[in-house]
Amino acid sequence: MFNGDNVSVADNQQERLDAEWIVGFVDGEGCFHVSINKMSEMSIGWQVLPEFRVVQHQRDEQILLRLKEYFGFGNVVVNHGDRKEFRVRGLDNLNKLIKFFEKYPLKTSKHKNFELFSKILNLMNNNEHLTMEGLQKIANLASKMNRQVVRHLESSETIRRNPTIVG
Amino acid sequence: MFNGDNVSVADNQQERLDAEWIVGFVDGEGCFHVSINKMSEMSIGWQVLPEFRVVQHQRDEQILLRLKEYFGFGNVVVNHGDRKEFRVRGLDNLNKLIKFFEKYPLKTSKHKNFELFSKILNLMNNNEHLTMEGLQKIANLASKMNRQVVRHLESSETIRRNPTIVG
Repeated sequence: MFNGDNVSVADNQQERLDAEWIVGFVDGEGCFHVSINKMSEMSIGWQVLPEFRVVQHQRDEQILLRLKEYFGFGNVVVNHGDRKEFRVRGLDNLNKLIKFFEKYPLKTSKHKNFELFSKILNLMNNNEHLTMEGLQKIANLASKMNRQVVRHLESSETIRRNPTIVG
Repeated sequence: MFNGDNVSVADNQQERLDAEWIVGFVDGEGCFHVSINKMSEMSIGWQVLPEFRVVQHQRDEQILLRLKEYFGFGNVVVNHGDRKEFRVRGLDNLNKLIKFFEKYPLKTSKHKNFELFSKILNLMNNNEHLTMEGLQKIANLASKMNRQVVRHLESSETIRRNPTIVG
């Protein structure tokens, strides 16, 4: 029997998510990622692209939209094939996201990735990604984070020798 | 500065988990699963084995142990290779687990799997898995749940013809 005052989660997908639920879901499904891309039109020649993602099969797009609604930023876009992602890019939004996870800490080892990600964001907030020295610091932090992707970025020489590295 | 009254999660991994965090984590990483196994020593010839699992890389074994501690049942065992799982078996424990997720509902489409799992548990609570008719009902429900594994179990004839089916 429908009762508007006692509507279930299944009936009302717009109910605000609980912060601890989000932390649990991100401990399972979230990804903090930093790619360093060759961009010859940028003065330093490289673009640092930090992003946060939660990927789900498209059958669960509603939960990605609820994440977007909760945070008030980010986008839900196609990941690949039948998978969608809630994606957050941009320093302003990512700084807000970091505040959220500082208030509600991750409980799995993903917390370590988050801390590295947070350090990289701090460097970017100080515009250090626009210097070769800062870029090197970022590459070193990212190499600890995205182990499969950028573990071979250990020196700025390597960055220069591998212009196609995309995270 | 260490303060015993204000210890962080990172410092005290034994802090009790939050129910909503668990729901979020299970929405991401949990699995409700029912296998129907040939067991010639059982009177009906088949054993129904429902189980709940959360699998993690062994680096996150601590979170599986915290789940076990929260619920007060289940075990942390090797899944395969470097992966471990928190696993709950047995009607008594699974009935308690169902009560938990009735109180704190899953928010993704995993909720549908949970409902099918819960129906199977109800049939088992009534000993229907010990009759061929009940076993057929269970196989039909399980085929909707574990799509990759048991979708070909559509009749008791099929069950009899496929003695090696293990979920």
